[in-house]
Amino acid sequence: MQHLTESTVTERVLERISDCPNPRLKQVMTALIEHLHEFAREVALTPEEWKAGIDFLTAAGHVTDEKRQEFILLSDTLGLSALVDIIQNRSRSGTATESSLLGPFYRHGAPQLPLGANIAGNTPGEPVLIQGQVRAAEGKPVAGALVDVWQAAPNGLYDLQDANQLEMNLRGQFRTDESGRFRFQSVKPASYPIPFDGPVGMMLRALGRHPYRPAHVHFMVSAPGYENLITALYITGDPYLDSDAVFGSRESLVAGYRPYNGKEGGSAIRETLEYDFVLAPTAANAHL
Amino acid sequence: MQHLTESTVTERVLERISDCPNPRLKQVMTALIEHLHEFAREVALTPEEWKAGIDFLTAAGHVTDEKRQEFILLSDTLGLSALVDIIQNRSRSGTATESSLLGPFYRHGAPQLPLGANIAGNTPGEPVLIQGQVRAAEGKPVAGALVDVWQAAPNGLYDLQDANQLEMNLRGQFRTDESGRFRFQSVKPASYPIPFDGPVGMMLRALGRHPYRPAHVHFMVSAPGYENLITALYITGDPYLDSDAVFGSRESLVAGYRPYNGKEGGSAIRETLEYDFVLAPTAANAHL
Repeated sequence: MQHLTESTVTERVLERISDCPNPRLKQVMTALIEHLHEFAREVALTPEEWKAGIDFLTAAGHVTDEKRQEFILLSDTLGLSALVDIIQNRSRSGTATESSLLGPFYRHGAPQLPLGANIAGNTPGEPVLIQGQVRAAEGKPVAGALVDVWQAAPNGLYDLQDANQLEMNLRGQFRTDESGRFRFQSVKPASYPIPFDGPVGMMLRALGRHPYRPAHVHFMVSAPGYENLITALYITGDPYLDSDAVFGSRESLVAGYRPYNGKEGGSAIRETLEYDFVLAPTAANAHL
Repeated sequence: MQHLTESTVTERVLERISDCPNPRLKQVMTALIEHLHEFAREVALTPEEWKAGIDFLTAAGHVTDEKRQEFILLSDTLGLSALVDIIQNRSRSGTATESSLLGPFYRHGAPQLPLGANIAGNTPGEPVLIQGQVRAAEGKPVAGALVDVWQAAPNGLYDLQDANQLEMNLRGQFRTDESGRFRFQSVKPASYPIPFDGPVGMMLRALGRHPYRPAHVHFMVSAPGYENLITALYITGDPYLDSDAVFGSRESLVAGYRPYNGKEGGSAIRETLEYDFVLAPTAANAHL
């Protein structure tokens, strides 16, 4: 039996996974074990600190349920989610729209609505027409693209978090018209804190950080032959644009409200938020 | 707003904790964030793999309760617990007994018993007398040291895990006599798998690893003026000595059963396991 020291313990753990039948799993776990051990050595992690970490993960597990995902909040607030997103889009062309975090509030099955419909129901707030065009990198409009949108209400809560909102409030799926254009009515989103009554909130306070996200509207845009685009629009002037608690905001994704003079379904609209999305071709399509 | 790239995202997260009022927390979190990000970059972690990690932590949180600690099992099986233990004992003198993992089954308040008592009650198994001496590094016996012992039954289960065992079965606290000696009756421990019906068990299978620990008896030895010693005795010839699933076994902590011819409280004893513990002086005491 080999003597275990600070450095040989890492070798021993790695030897133990030498027979892992899945090469990718072996690669990922090797890097995970090496970095986990190097972290502990570098800071000389004490048993008390280790125990605090175990307790933190335990509390995060216990607060997590179908409507609350503390581990995603942890990943988001440590910048890991943003990093995974950036890595995923390493090869995407520079002209395509930047991606932004999916976040924990996406739901499948939002209602399919006609262009111009209102996703806000009777949610109190300032009305706004959100519109734009979906294009390919070379400028060609993408007709029939699916534009799936979701946002928080002006009180900072998503339907999932708020008993006063109807199911699927502030969510909708739209199809672009033959010019690649989409439009829908909504209310202006507000900046809001991520849930901070759990372990992640405690962590943010201990680190001297605030829990706010700048106001945004989420978009998932998809069309055959193009990479799925998961992104969000942020609003010019929001005080949290530079300090988004989850590192989702991007300069290229900021747009401002502009005056507008029109009607949708009988309602007068005075402001609009406009943004065009540029899709990257799928790898197969890029060769054509 | 700065453009986020694979490398600048790490800088941005670190900037965000620059005002952390606790210097040690800042140091630990800085290293954690750097290693977490470097891990993701190094393996180009995909969103699907990230999601699998989130699901793993969620499942670990949900299986964890008062009697089951999946995050400690995770730390143990990745060698982190062993490493923290080794780091903690960096400065301990070479003559002191090596430490080994506390493990998740320690309980406060084991019964205080007279020397020679039987901790196994009517647990079926092969009887053995476990005995030894507690000494200081220079050889002086330590009288009145508290020797807190706990072990699994021959079926591989601790009292906490087994409805057929009485509360505090196979646990006891003893005081060394004026020669620093302790002795108690028990049954021979068996090698056993750590709980492998949860996420950590799935991980071990995916990695091609077995979940077994070699047979062992846990000891916590304490006396005024000495560092608390948390260790365990392992048994010569155990097939898992070289592949302990939690990296707890140490060559210096292996002892063999020897024939014995004696009686304790009317019971004939035929085998003994003997081991002497050497305590390190506390930092304050080491200067004397």
